[in-house]
Amino acid sequence: MLRATIDADVFKEAVDAIAALVSECRLHVSAEGMRTRAVDTANVAMVSLELAPAAFEVFEASERALGIDITKLKNIIGMVNRGDSLQLSIPADSQKLNLAFQSYQYSLTLLDPNTIRKDPNAPSLELPGQVVLDGATLTNAIKAATVVSDKIALGIDPEARVFYMEAEGDTDNIRLELGPDKVQSLTETKARSLFSLDYLKDMSRTMGRAERIEIGIGIDHPVRFTFEIAGGAGKVVYLLAPRIEAD
Amino acid sequence: MLRATIDADVFKEAVDAIAALVSECRLHVSAEGMRTRAVDTANVAMVSLELAPAAFEVFEASERALGIDITKLKNIIGMVNRGDSLQLSIPADSQKLNLAFQSYQYSLTLLDPNTIRKDPNAPSLELPGQVVLDGATLTNAIKAATVVSDKIALGIDPEARVFYMEAEGDTDNIRLELGPDKVQSLTETKARSLFSLDYLKDMSRTMGRAERIEIGIGIDHPVRFTFEIAGGAGKVVYLLAPRIEAD
Amino acid sequence: MLRATIDADVFKEAVDAIAALVSECRLHVSAEGMRTRAVDTANVAMVSLELAPAAFEVFEASERALGIDITKLKNIIGMVNRGDSLQLSIPADSQKLNLAFQSYQYSLTLLDPNTIRKDPNAPSLELPGQVVLDGATLTNAIKAATVVSDKIALGIDPEARVFYMEAEGDTDNIRLELGPDKVQSLTETKARSLFSLDYLKDMSRTMGRAERIEIGIGIDHPVRFTFEIAGGAGKVVYLLAPRIEAD
Repeated sequence: MLRATIDADVFKEAVDAIAALVSECRLHVSAEGMRTRAVDTANVAMVSLELAPAAFEVFEASERALGIDITKLKNIIGMVNRGDSLQLSIPADSQKLNLAFQSYQYSLTLLDPNTIRKDPNAPSLELPGQVVLDGATLTNAIKAATVVSDKIALGIDPEARVFYMEAEGDTDNIRLELGPDKVQSLTETKARSLFSLDYLKDMSRTMGRAERIEIGIGIDHPVRFTFEIAGGAGKVVYLLAPRIEAD
Repeated sequence: MLRATIDADVFKEAVDAIAALVSECRLHVSAEGMRTRAVDTANVAMVSLELAPAAFEVFEASERALGIDITKLKNIIGMVNRGDSLQLSIPADSQKLNLAFQSYQYSLTLLDPNTIRKDPNAPSLELPGQVVLDGATLTNAIKAATVVSDKIALGIDPEARVFYMEAEGDTDNIRLELGPDKVQSLTETKARSLFSLDYLKDMSRTMGRAERIEIGIGIDHPVRFTFEIAGGAGKVVYLLAPRIEAD
Repeated sequence: MLRATIDADVFKEAVDAIAALVSECRLHVSAEGMRTRAVDTANVAMVSLELAPAAFEVFEASERALGIDITKLKNIIGMVNRGDSLQLSIPADSQKLNLAFQSYQYSLTLLDPNTIRKDPNAPSLELPGQVVLDGATLTNAIKAATVVSDKIALGIDPEARVFYMEAEGDTDNIRLELGPDKVQSLTETKARSLFSLDYLKDMSRTMGRAERIEIGIGIDHPVRFTFEIAGGAGKVVYLLAPRIEAD
């Protein structure tokens, strides 16, 4: 059983964060809210998302794992106007998620959760480098790097006390350095790993709106981006595996 | 002979209404204004359009059927700026329609009207269900339905006193119900027919701007949309044949 | 050696003017500023561009010919925000052009100038017809002509005292006449030549912003467009060869 009312913009942001990586997911609903964790088909990136009951105007749910076609859900949410209120409901034992907004009734057939990949475990990662900055700065850097290359190095230079992003093409390169005045915080720990820009571009569409993104990095280790949605009632974590840096 | 001056926006709306269904048409001009009636190549939809002399600032015409390449005419009108005045003229016996706006002179060669399909007869239809609503509501519903399916049912449920639109996909469906508070008027007559969304999408581009659309529907019958353009000096009627509803 | 600072918008306009015709060029820098002259691969159009030191906030250069990948440079400049300041530098003997803006450092490898076509000579042309008008009028006329044809005639009718542009399609034509009240000046010299709209469209993107374009035309002769950029500290000249007018 699920009965929930939520601001359409808030729900759209959550759905977009998941849709950046996967086209279907297991959405766990319970009295504690909604959460999902999913890995992309190539096993390169993971998204974890939590939405607390406080993100909703109304929220009642009994525990259940829902199989959701995220692509379809995203298309439907795309029709809802800014500021509309969206009602979600699933009667007990029903296999349909009902969405109501304005005078519309939409019914989305649930997928069998057993047909969807098992929830991945959250890997335990030690990422000693920590940087906090706003999403727009990160998104602009990712966009700038795509002009030159299809991968980007993220790192911390502890001597220069800067967080840097660097992209190298065949003949050209671009480097962005952000000192203590341009980031919200920065650990002075050496770090550098290389990442695929394809994934970062998809992730950055959602991250661009966040005022505060915590980045965890290491040396040839995955990167972790953590940020809040739904005015603090929701949290998204992206993990992205590194690529091998050729010499 | 034709000599007419018209606000470019008004003429653009009329041309767009025709261009939604056909790429060429027989345009009848006379002292009573302009009118055309045309059927799309698949014989599924019909457009009738009338523009009274009151839609024009200047209007003089002797009776004549003009063969018009609507696609070309639409491209030319697309260059005219909002608020510009457009002058149309055809000297007696000329085979060219001259359009003048700003410092431009455009000359469009007329098609031989005999090479264009004869004017279709207006079928006599009894469509007992009558609904009146604004164009934006209709256009939004058509857009919403396309997320789910390529066809849409339009109907009246006399018990619930609602006009409804319903689209069913393989696994999902969407339903919009508009009660007496959401429509301008509604007959309590049972009606339901199924239509192709392709045609409705093309028609809805023009209908979306109308404040008042009269819809006539029956049971497995065509639908008729009637609305005014040119501030009431013009009228458009769209007819669309139903599709067979599979069980 | 080059060390220069320039408003990003100004540099973008200069790069766009060159990119309209060629994808790489020899850029000559010296104490007198920057200049280039290049011909498109089909030898149909030529661009000359000069930027005086006054176009820059800071400008120091020793004489050198730089091989520039204009397409790449255009992509980089596209990332710079309106109003940003752009720093250009090349250390002595370096083969890289460094661009810095905001916190970004971009490094573009120079091309070997010997691999780029030699600078063309400026042909000596007598173009007795002279017209001065604003770029927006010219750009709109070029856009209007593309609806009808892929070439346009530009001319002066000395009896009617108009500058005209005329495009003829298979069945349709468009003509724009600009009298003394619509142009800034006009010589009463007979002129008419035919030009490819493809080239004019590319050129008009840059010309559309100019307040004053000097046009030189003759009879079946090239056309020359001259206009200022960088608030008068830069000058662009486009030359375009005529096409043969078939009867």
